[in-house]
Amino acid sequence: MDKLHSGVFLDRVRAEKPLIHCITNYVTANDVANMLLACGASPIMADDPADAHDIASLCRGLVLNIGTLNERKLSAIRIAGKTAKDGGKKVLLDPVGAGASHFRTEAALEIMETIKPDIVRGNISEIRALAKGIEATKGVDASEADAVQEDTLDSAVRFIKRFALHSGTIVAASGKIDLVTDGTVCCVIRNGREEMRTITGTGCQLSGLMTAFLSVSPEAGWKAVAAADIAMGLAGEIAWTYKRPEEGNATCRNRIIDAIWNMTGDALEKGANYDIR
Amino acid sequence: MDKLHSGVFLDRVRAEKPLIHCITNYVTANDVANMLLACGASPIMADDPADAHDIASLCRGLVLNIGTLNERKLSAIRIAGKTAKDGGKKVLLDPVGAGASHFRTEAALEIMETIKPDIVRGNISEIRALAKGIEATKGVDASEADAVQEDTLDSAVRFIKRFALHSGTIVAASGKIDLVTDGTVCCVIRNGREEMRTITGTGCQLSGLMTAFLSVSPEAGWKAVAAADIAMGLAGEIAWTYKRPEEGNATCRNRIIDAIWNMTGDALEKGANYDIR
Amino acid sequence: MDKLHSGVFLDRVRAEKPLIHCITNYVTANDVANMLLACGASPIMADDPADAHDIASLCRGLVLNIGTLNERKLSAIRIAGKTAKDGGKKVLLDPVGAGASHFRTEAALEIMETIKPDIVRGNISEIRALAKGIEATKGVDASEADAVQEDTLDSAVRFIKRFALHSGTIVAASGKIDLVTDGTVCCVIRNGREEMRTITGTGCQLSGLMTAFLSVSPEAGWKAVAAADIAMGLAGEIAWTYKRPEEGNATCRNRIIDAIWNMTGDALEKGANYDIR
Repeated sequence: MDKLHSGVFLDRVRAEKPLIHCITNYVTANDVANMLLACGASPIMADDPADAHDIASLCRGLVLNIGTLNERKLSAIRIAGKTAKDGGKKVLLDPVGAGASHFRTEAALEIMETIKPDIVRGNISEIRALAKGIEATKGVDASEADAVQEDTLDSAVRFIKRFALHSGTIVAASGKIDLVTDGTVCCVIRNGREEMRTITGTGCQLSGLMTAFLSVSPEAGWKAVAAADIAMGLAGEIAWTYKRPEEGNATCRNRIIDAIWNMTGDALEKGANYDIR
Repeated sequence: MDKLHSGVFLDRVRAEKPLIHCITNYVTANDVANMLLACGASPIMADDPADAHDIASLCRGLVLNIGTLNERKLSAIRIAGKTAKDGGKKVLLDPVGAGASHFRTEAALEIMETIKPDIVRGNISEIRALAKGIEATKGVDASEADAVQEDTLDSAVRFIKRFALHSGTIVAASGKIDLVTDGTVCCVIRNGREEMRTITGTGCQLSGLMTAFLSVSPEAGWKAVAAADIAMGLAGEIAWTYKRPEEGNATCRNRIIDAIWNMTGDALEKGANYDIR
Repeated sequence: MDKLHSGVFLDRVRAEKPLIHCITNYVTANDVANMLLACGASPIMADDPADAHDIASLCRGLVLNIGTLNERKLSAIRIAGKTAKDGGKKVLLDPVGAGASHFRTEAALEIMETIKPDIVRGNISEIRALAKGIEATKGVDASEADAVQEDTLDSAVRFIKRFALHSGTIVAASGKIDLVTDGTVCCVIRNGREEMRTITGTGCQLSGLMTAFLSVSPEAGWKAVAAADIAMGLAGEIAWTYKRPEEGNATCRNRIIDAIWNMTGDALEKGANYDIR
């Protein structure tokens, strides 16, 4: 069985301090910035077309998160996406709300088609919305994708692998169980706490982490992405270890970021809970 | 005397997990989202005209908060407001900064006139600014509205009832004492801590709570809204119970959301401190 | 040697509760608002041209922060800047990302030239980018400005004094050591913790504090600005005093704001660590 050595990826982020350009929503931008700082990376938030080329040129990775999307932001995404890919930088798409509005679904599909991100990370219903959008032309069967739980795991793994193969990206689906795949190998990750879904922005923060991890280990592909996913889940577990009875989602939000701030490569490796299919 | 049974409303939010569409300011959007999650609801933030109809269609409640307003956001408000009301969903207006700029005052008055929200929640000076705007045509005397304290309570109750009657909405005024009225009955709420005004966004969070509470108990009207108000005040009291000497507004901000996350219907009912006039 | 009496400036903010208009980025707006509340001031965030004149008229100070800048926000900056200066209010420029994109660099230079802010606060590379922009015409040698550390202190002080003289503003450079100067006198501040750079928005919050401090003590000039700088550094030291081993940047972010919320004028004066050159 493949051994991920997740800790190496975290150590490399801390050593190289990659600058990550985030075009992201205003709801969770602060937490994304603090999460990137916590893992050793450096965030720059800039979402205007006038800024997009210059900032994307400076950075080693680019997060495209379509929460609170608007036309101006979408123009910035087009420019920054092209600049980043032309410069060989790593690009992640977080299709927040794909499936909830035509505007977001179509924006996400356009980004898939024209920018060809290196990673797509979303919950399973967002991934399914993208799969539906390309299934007519590519033959992906989106109906296979249900909530990822132990009893639906086989079909979910099959679905997400096929989606990754056809879209040509690393795909990460977040849920009760997390899946990360390049289309050939699928990493099934059982780190994390269910209560994390009561904290806004844990998905957005994970997208930031994944971009930072992959940007400094591009050759590692899905392994770097899976390592970031494990780190986030482990941070959730640690946060709940320290949670006092009177504390809830707001304090745990901080404790998760704190846990990444304090995490060593060794601790990440020891806490990893996954298998590979 | 009417007994509110506030706890029932909270329990129903947790059972039904209503999706709440928030068109809101970027200063407090994160806290509003975490507050909605804390009470068992599910937030979607989307403020673009291109998103407004689709997202409002999906949701059971809509928050219109005019902090950091701009023309694009106002266009989204118009579309989402119409969609929500046409679909029988509950709509709240939080007139942040009404009275501070013509742009905000006029936007708030337009929303009152054309969307006819189910709830208006603001501080007394914002409510007064709205009352002034409609007093020429409707005969509301805004000068009666002063800071709501024990010695000004009678005139404040009279003012807010008349404003609710003439505007045809439930009105909630936040201050040292909170008032919630449908124009006939006024709930006078003494939960809360004065220091909560040193935390940005407690009003915005309360607006989110009220929308969630009313969306799943539309038949209850002002009672559901008052229950949300009591819950927020009680959360403030609990937050200060756990406050350590070195802590201040930033940590208490989290503790308030945490308190809602941990609050049971029973605890809410036991902690309620109000009378009805 | 000059004695600052920093505590007096904090006490005056608490007594006068100045209203501060912030045109700022959405990443850190919440923390800036809570920081202003923590020191006793009152924040209003408004970044639209339609709001800019009315809100700037109401306020005693104006923060112009160009993080997540766009053309709409820049139009609001132009209007609010003129209104504030015409009304004799204090204006601060925080040139976030100057040097990282042409758009931001040129926006910052335009603000320097046309609005003539009372304070410019940034990190040394942002200050250098501004200095480069005006050096052709004004003879400031930007190459003197390196990371401010003990061994580069002399040249940094020389550089920042010259920049302040030529630009006609109070200049505050944040780093391992902070510098505040009016061009004649330079306050060298050694309060603070290096880990504060792993928290997003500590610079933005400091800009808010400086504006509040100067707005109620305009006659004090650089002394009021230096007092705010010392308060922020001291708050960082206090935050780390209370930091538990499992805590990191997210919790310390709150502890810093909490420390300002609890800070007395006396404590500020006792904790101040600076010299004047």
